[in-house]
Amino acid sequence: MAEDNVVYVGSKPVMNYVLAVTTQLNNSKEVVLKSRGQAISRAVDAAEIVRNRFMPGVKIKNINISTEELTREDGTTMNVSAMEITLSK
Amino acid sequence: MAEDNVVYVGSKPVMNYVLAVTTQLNNSKEVVLKSRGQAISRAVDAAEIVRNRFMPGVKIKNINISTEELTREDGTTMNVSAMEITLSK
Repeated sequence: MAEDNVVYVGSKPVMNYVLAVTTQLNNSKEVVLKSRGQAISRAVDAAEIVRNRFMPGVKIKNINISTEELTREDGTTMNVSAMEITLSK
Repeated sequence: MAEDNVVYVGSKPVMNYVLAVTTQLNNSKEVVLKSRGQAISRAVDAAEIVRNRFMPGVKIKNINISTEELTREDGTTMNVSAMEITLSK
């Protein structure tokens, strides 16, 4: 899948991501919502709003969770949870 | 599955839920982590910590997301995202 089918969910208002996902799904069959840490719950919100309110035909194809290792500025590492939700129409 | 195989993830420190899940998995083959709203990212953290640090043989059997309708005290309703992570050994 091309990298432009990915929507990175961060700390902006959830409707920004809903709009991004809806736009992507008008141009392609699938879109992947990637999120880390606290943004994970916002990614779930975005996927649910797209499915329930804007594009009822869209299905959750896959959900993956994993752990990523981030390096702080002082060189120490921390683990952060990550999630990928794949939506397809 | 009996209801006591469910761990509800809320706003307590994540290690509380890690301990609850680990204890459950010593008594049964499966455990379901249920969470709503902001607690969703904590549930993912708990599942990942159990898998990576305490019980490496545990697998993610299924992840489900959904929307639940809550009623406020004044009678109005709000939607909240929910997630269920099923872990099995």
